[in-house]
Amino acid sequence: MATIVLCSMSKTAQAAVRRCTGLHLKRLSDCALHASPHSRSAVLFPGAGRLPRGSGGVRFMSHGTTGASAGGRARWRVLAVSGAVTAVGAVVGIAANAKHFQRAEMATKIAPANAVQECEEEGDILERCRAFMSPPVTDVSVLQSRKGEMRTRMEMLIMKTQADFCRALEEVDGGTFTVDRWERKEGGGGISCVMQDGKVFEKAGVNVSVVFGHLTEEAAKQMRSRGKILKGKDGKLPFCAMGVSSVIHPKNPHIPTVHFNYRYFEIEEEDGNKQWWFGGGTDLTPVYINREDAVHFHGTLKEACDKHHPQYYPDFKKWCDRYFYIRHRGETRGIGGIFFDDLDSPNQEEVFSFVKSCARTVVPCYLPIVYKHLNDSFTDEEKDWQQVRRGRYVEFNLVYDRGVKFGLATPGSRIESILMSLPLTARWEYMHQPAKGTEEDEILQVLKNPVEWV
Amino acid sequence: MATIVLCSMSKTAQAAVRRCTGLHLKRLSDCALHASPHSRSAVLFPGAGRLPRGSGGVRFMSHGTTGASAGGRARWRVLAVSGAVTAVGAVVGIAANAKHFQRAEMATKIAPANAVQECEEEGDILERCRAFMSPPVTDVSVLQSRKGEMRTRMEMLIMKTQADFCRALEEVDGGTFTVDRWERKEGGGGISCVMQDGKVFEKAGVNVSVVFGHLTEEAAKQMRSRGKILKGKDGKLPFCAMGVSSVIHPKNPHIPTVHFNYRYFEIEEEDGNKQWWFGGGTDLTPVYINREDAVHFHGTLKEACDKHHPQYYPDFKKWCDRYFYIRHRGETRGIGGIFFDDLDSPNQEEVFSFVKSCARTVVPCYLPIVYKHLNDSFTDEEKDWQQVRRGRYVEFNLVYDRGVKFGLATPGSRIESILMSLPLTARWEYMHQPAKGTEEDEILQVLKNPVEWV
Repeated sequence: MATIVLCSMSKTAQAAVRRCTGLHLKRLSDCALHASPHSRSAVLFPGAGRLPRGSGGVRFMSHGTTGASAGGRARWRVLAVSGAVTAVGAVVGIAANAKHFQRAEMATKIAPANAVQECEEEGDILERCRAFMSPPVTDVSVLQSRKGEMRTRMEMLIMKTQADFCRALEEVDGGTFTVDRWERKEGGGGISCVMQDGKVFEKAGVNVSVVFGHLTEEAAKQMRSRGKILKGKDGKLPFCAMGVSSVIHPKNPHIPTVHFNYRYFEIEEEDGNKQWWFGGGTDLTPVYINREDAVHFHGTLKEACDKHHPQYYPDFKKWCDRYFYIRHRGETRGIGGIFFDDLDSPNQEEVFSFVKSCARTVVPCYLPIVYKHLNDSFTDEEKDWQQVRRGRYVEFNLVYDRGVKFGLATPGSRIESILMSLPLTARWEYMHQPAKGTEEDEILQVLKNPVEWV
Repeated sequence: MATIVLCSMSKTAQAAVRRCTGLHLKRLSDCALHASPHSRSAVLFPGAGRLPRGSGGVRFMSHGTTGASAGGRARWRVLAVSGAVTAVGAVVGIAANAKHFQRAEMATKIAPANAVQECEEEGDILERCRAFMSPPVTDVSVLQSRKGEMRTRMEMLIMKTQADFCRALEEVDGGTFTVDRWERKEGGGGISCVMQDGKVFEKAGVNVSVVFGHLTEEAAKQMRSRGKILKGKDGKLPFCAMGVSSVIHPKNPHIPTVHFNYRYFEIEEEDGNKQWWFGGGTDLTPVYINREDAVHFHGTLKEACDKHHPQYYPDFKKWCDRYFYIRHRGETRGIGGIFFDDLDSPNQEEVFSFVKSCARTVVPCYLPIVYKHLNDSFTDEEKDWQQVRRGRYVEFNLVYDRGVKFGLATPGSRIESILMSLPLTARWEYMHQPAKGTEEDEILQVLKNPVEWV
């Protein structure tokens, strides 16, 4: 049985999580004090004992003015409703802060899929929305009226993934995300959460978008990577596309950049038949190679994949290396992870369950690495090398990334949300060539020849 | 009659320039002392009186190890062989350093086209090559054997433009360009001159390339912006493409970035008929609007254009605004200048003469602005805004620039030469939005609504 560790959680809250997940709870009453690199005790667990807060009006953060207090209030709700990921994010930090984390320990971080799934999809939509960074894109009443539909379940998942990840990052950074809601004239909108120039993170962006409307047959064909032909009524196809995507650029060059994106598409054909598919992935872009980090990151992803299909990890790992390839440099953007697209088998329930496992894996993949390197010292030269690698990140995103290219070319796109993946700062040095045998050269070799980490 | 001013030049050198240009020389024996912001007297005019150096062996800077002494020695040759532009660049600095330069004075900077043209194309190829940053891409013996052909005349022009501009920049910066020669496996090569992290310039790149080989009919069609169909022998067309291009990113946010590019194409059709055309342009990207600078820059370009056709400046100014447009931002990259492509009328001699005027205009367009703002103070906020604008520069170059896209997609391209146009540092702030009425907002309004400066 997996074990999760909850800190300073009220008995009522613990009982709620236990009811949902059947997980064994281990109390570490003062762990936050030991974990804190910079008075994180107050940041990690604000409002301890305040939960449950009763069923008062829903409180959301307003656009661009998310106060620490609002964030604090909402945080407990996340713990109460679906504690696993966020609590784990915090606790993993405690273990990792001692500079060494154990793979074995990591293995306990993902609660059994079925148990958490039941919990996540239980309960009132409105109640679950309270944990989010903002009200969902779709009206709560609409979500309630079609609770069982995949587009509702996916929207709830991406909103929750955004909230869990943002809060885990706020906890380690001490800063707060700015939350912007935006609308798309043609239908739908999004919620962009950005933290810039924090203590730990140079730029952290976590974006949700839910858009719908009509596509031409040509555009619909382009949306599917296999280019399947779809028949629309008078050439037009109603569609719905949604996803959560994130890029985190830390300040310390020993903390890698992470990116993830999980998305869902639905297109209705002329005969009313619904085509649907999922895509996504999580990948890591370190500035220096740390084998332990790489093994942890890939191992955590593999574990999540293996629960669903033994071929998922090997196939999607390769796909990731192929996709995040900076052709003109002859190197991958980072050390990869997983990437998949156009996934529609064996059935919708199974694929959704897989995507859910992946989304839940984001925090345990990344946060332990952040905590581990939080206090690593670094030189000016290491910072410069980070900036050069940031330049490569920009090159990939602007020249090759399909999402960015599609977004920039689409009239009415919200450019700031598309380009929030770009780092705060980057550098291009002419003919930068690390000397053989240096750590800078070591990572270049890995980027030119992807490694099987697990 | 135009007047150019030569400082500390030996009588022999003055006589040489006078012979070539028929220009009136005005001696300002100690002007360098007044002009120098940082002991430039030594930098501007090293080796005074050393010219002529006789006809000893050709001296070139070696790859990546251009010493100041080599630069110094070569500099006098530039003054001697084709004094107008380089000397003018220096002298304009002197005038501009008093913080105000006069349009009237600028008007004297371009020597009458015919006089200088004769001078430039007179004399032994080998002797003229001594002024260059490196031996030309094509063997000197080959150039000598086809002295009258356009590809030779153009290669000499782009090599000379590179040398003149590099030396004018070295003079103002005090730093030295690194010179890299590179070869293209499929035919030809290039010379990349880069100065990085100088006193004045964050990154300055001046690149020459001369490539040749065979194109498919499809590729040949793509190379012409009007997409003219060309017939090749067995579908293959011998081609030759050459050009000089440069991007200069200064450190001080009050000194704008400049870019120029002049290029020539030749394609031989099945029947032996040669298709040829020229393209090019010079454009300015300031961080803040300075109307006087803008008027000087556009005025100098207009003057060069007007000598050849009254419609050139208005047409090519508009083309420039259209081309350097960052569509997803709804703004131009900078305040423009001129841009033209596919120019093949009224005849080759006339177009070459126009391109030569443009190339000669680069130094007098830009250097006065550099000297004028050399000692401007700036705040951290102004530096930040510069970095944000640098980010936009990167966006244009990686997403839209045809040359960059073509280069990155072409196997065997020299990536470092293509991407040397990227700034040393750049910044992407989420939702950066200058307040109304600020100087940052002022330039945004100009970039959204291009201005007729002259």
